[in-house]
Amino acid sequence: MWEILLVNVLLSITGFFVILNVVPKFKDMFLKAKLSGIDMNKSDKPEIPEATGVITSCIFLIVMFIFIPVPFSKHWFNKEWGFPHQEFVQFVAALLSICCMVLLGFADDVLNLKWRHKLLLPTVASLPLLMVYYTNFNSTTIIIPKPLRSFFGSEMDLNVLYYVYMGMLAVFCTNAINIYAGINGLEVGQSIVIAASLILFNIFELNGDCWTNHLFSLYFMIPFFFTCLALHQLNKYPASVFVGDTFCYFSGMTVAVVAILGHFSKTALLFFIPQIVNFIFSLPQLFHILPCPRHRLPRLNPKTGLLDPSVFQFKEMKLNTVSRLVLNIYKMFGLVRVEHVSEDADISQSTNCTLINFVLKFMGPTHEKTLAIYLLVLQVLCSVAAFAIRYPLASLFYDR
Amino acid sequence: MWEILLVNVLLSITGFFVILNVVPKFKDMFLKAKLSGIDMNKSDKPEIPEATGVITSCIFLIVMFIFIPVPFSKHWFNKEWGFPHQEFVQFVAALLSICCMVLLGFADDVLNLKWRHKLLLPTVASLPLLMVYYTNFNSTTIIIPKPLRSFFGSEMDLNVLYYVYMGMLAVFCTNAINIYAGINGLEVGQSIVIAASLILFNIFELNGDCWTNHLFSLYFMIPFFFTCLALHQLNKYPASVFVGDTFCYFSGMTVAVVAILGHFSKTALLFFIPQIVNFIFSLPQLFHILPCPRHRLPRLNPKTGLLDPSVFQFKEMKLNTVSRLVLNIYKMFGLVRVEHVSEDADISQSTNCTLINFVLKFMGPTHEKTLAIYLLVLQVLCSVAAFAIRYPLASLFYDR
Repeated sequence: MWEILLVNVLLSITGFFVILNVVPKFKDMFLKAKLSGIDMNKSDKPEIPEATGVITSCIFLIVMFIFIPVPFSKHWFNKEWGFPHQEFVQFVAALLSICCMVLLGFADDVLNLKWRHKLLLPTVASLPLLMVYYTNFNSTTIIIPKPLRSFFGSEMDLNVLYYVYMGMLAVFCTNAINIYAGINGLEVGQSIVIAASLILFNIFELNGDCWTNHLFSLYFMIPFFFTCLALHQLNKYPASVFVGDTFCYFSGMTVAVVAILGHFSKTALLFFIPQIVNFIFSLPQLFHILPCPRHRLPRLNPKTGLLDPSVFQFKEMKLNTVSRLVLNIYKMFGLVRVEHVSEDADISQSTNCTLINFVLKFMGPTHEKTLAIYLLVLQVLCSVAAFAIRYPLASLFYDR
Repeated sequence: MWEILLVNVLLSITGFFVILNVVPKFKDMFLKAKLSGIDMNKSDKPEIPEATGVITSCIFLIVMFIFIPVPFSKHWFNKEWGFPHQEFVQFVAALLSICCMVLLGFADDVLNLKWRHKLLLPTVASLPLLMVYYTNFNSTTIIIPKPLRSFFGSEMDLNVLYYVYMGMLAVFCTNAINIYAGINGLEVGQSIVIAASLILFNIFELNGDCWTNHLFSLYFMIPFFFTCLALHQLNKYPASVFVGDTFCYFSGMTVAVVAILGHFSKTALLFFIPQIVNFIFSLPQLFHILPCPRHRLPRLNPKTGLLDPSVFQFKEMKLNTVSRLVLNIYKMFGLVRVEHVSEDADISQSTNCTLINFVLKFMGPTHEKTLAIYLLVLQVLCSVAAFAIRYPLASLFYDR
């Protein structure tokens, strides 16, 4: 087992250096193809290549293609053992789902797909995965937490609902990373922390009963971790490339894939706490209960060189009851800052409902680089909390 | 078996109508993303969306994702039969290779990749396929044709060379279709003829010993045929969309996949006669033995509205011995037309070395629509010849 992991790590490190070398060479090609975006939070508004996540994802896929034969090598030299097609198909289906998602993410970056596509496509991309889950495991029974057992019994078979849940997990992971973005290095940084947390969790569990699942997860998470690490070098402040929806989709799907096939989707979700908080916080704007501007990323104050929260404007009189209620609750808990812009015209403004803007409101104007560090420290703290929930506290809710 | 094929046909027809409906809706998105090309052979030089093959490929993939469970349905309801993971992994790996190729093709359309990528990438995309071939069959023995048996014996184990051959098959199929293009409807039209020929061949062979391989091929070829049929409606003269490298890569890889996993790569190549001829004819320009302009497609004569062969210019004095030899051979066999442009300046011109230009030279100036029909009739005639080679003549070279 250890020698296989060693090969995996070596291939991953090779991938790391390939990415560092190859991505900068593609920059001109991206600019020429008009696949670029303006970095709004720099005073000189530079044009940066967009969607470079497609190159790193392809390099990740190539690393995985080269790695796949390794765990099966002993079966290839001893044909009489019988080849474990069941494990092999898991690899191939996982890569198919990831590859599909990269294709769709890149299409989104190039074509600017609509919201309905963004929800439909991850579902489609997770179909091969669910099929393999069905043929290989098809265990749809969940264990009920102790406090609820008097109502539901100790186990419950969710049946087809469990597949809906897994499909939604893929949709959630891809989009949650996508909307928790807007400053240099954040998309990739959060992916690094999530990957590192999952690697740690998998290593802890290698001694447990389900060690094969966690080994399978490690085969994907280690190359994923190094892929993100390399891309972060190029995407951190001041970013020389943008990663695009391609990267967010790739990242979310890779995590969803190992969580589903590794049977630890609940634990995986624990490492998404900032993304979940950001998602719930954003809901009123995503569903247009509150006005939602095209961009919600923080805005640069050119005088100080620091970032301020971005805002949306509204007329107090025009808000309906639900919108006013939501806004008042957010204001009450100090989640947003509401100000009157002009007393006469009844125009007010509120900071946008994202975790990034909340942190900015809480900490005051902050430099983009520092803000990214704050948010990544928050992600790390949430992972520590996740481990605290998963290990010591889990015994309160579940039998060991 | 027949009811499974019926479901496949019904899903394929659904895919056909979805493509006819969906692709036109995406046209604006493609134009807005600057994913467009000028139709050089129309007098008003319209701007046409490029790379729409990415949508049809995705719809093909979705049709296949929905179809996959069908052939395995009997195993799902009778768990004790044991699930045929070995067959299942073939499906998944085939789709992974196709999906990879679509991703790379689309990246090529958007980013204009270099030639070395165009050769490297299909090789990478065929890795999962070769791995499945290795685990499921690993038969690398070929049967030697009778006339050569006195030298090589009746069988020969090609071993690793056989994998090189299969990898090169994928590279060849994708690029052969890509360079046999340039007039409306030709890329898709040739794919329709190839798909139809393979479907016919698979149906003939359903009574043979290897019927499972041919059934597997039908599962892919029928949806592929309908996908091409729908796209041809939009791409035929006057084209409202261009299909892009994406389509050529998708098309070539899909054929390569079924040829490899279905063990009929030699027969599949027989249906590529025009592509092979065009490829060999093009070699001197591809390898820059003769000058190669950026575009070799026929050019429109605005006065007549008909197409003339396109030309490359050169100075007779500057050609080296090899170039002059090749050009003289081509001239001798009437494959190209060489003319002096200016006697003083020693500038000559020759028609470009493509099958399209040769047909134009042979038939005289032709309308684009008529030329496409000629070339597709040629493709059909070559398929008829291929069947003649495969069935009656094969008995001269191989035992039945």
